[in-house]
Amino acid sequence: MSQASEFHNLHAPTGGIERELAPGLHAHIFAGEGAMLSVVTIEPNAAGTLHSHPEEQWGVLLEGSAIRVQGEEEIPVRQGDFWRTPGGVPHTMRAGPEGCRVLDIFAPPRPEYRVPGKGFGG
Amino acid sequence: MSQASEFHNLHAPTGGIERELAPGLHAHIFAGEGAMLSVVTIEPNAAGTLHSHPEEQWGVLLEGSAIRVQGEEEIPVRQGDFWRTPGGVPHTMRAGPEGCRVLDIFAPPRPEYRVPGKGFGG
Repeated sequence: MSQASEFHNLHAPTGGIERELAPGLHAHIFAGEGAMLSVVTIEPNAAGTLHSHPEEQWGVLLEGSAIRVQGEEEIPVRQGDFWRTPGGVPHTMRAGPEGCRVLDIFAPPRPEYRVPGKGFGG
Repeated sequence: MSQASEFHNLHAPTGGIERELAPGLHAHIFAGEGAMLSVVTIEPNAAGTLHSHPEEQWGVLLEGSAIRVQGEEEIPVRQGDFWRTPGGVPHTMRAGPEGCRVLDIFAPPRPEYRVPGKGFGG
């Protein structure tokens, strides 16, 4: 089988599973076997709700700025920052005034995100 | 424990495990439990060697341009492109004339990359 179907683009993440995580937080989700990638756009000043899940998560700030809430800390992040969120640690994001785009990586994939829907699952 | 040690930056990937994958391909590797991230700089026109491993891999082209060799295909990639490489599929990269930077994601982590060294392991 051609490998071409495995190639996508962050700026036009077509072909993923769309999910509204919260008002102003929109995700395009691509599931593999070992990991799941989610390209998330957060509107200016929008914020998710604190949640956790057993799967490890990594995040990469692609554009803009935000506050990463993780554990009991609030850590400002800017373009190029990346971080690991161990499984079970409560977390969320709050976008800065210009909004932001984030690449989230779940390993293993989150079963809740394999189907279209709303919310953070769990 | 503070979450601050889980935060890094793609432009200055300090704190990772350094690895020379091939001449002109230099990696900073960050290992988690579910996934391992590797920030790879490829010098202009440098190329890795075709290899495979059982772990799933994802790649994100952060800067520059390259040819992604995957399976029996050669697919040009540009900034913002990302792709999945199923476990066991032979692959490598060949940078364009301006070089490139790639974020590689291994899920699960590759045991060979948990220690400093040279080469693609396996």
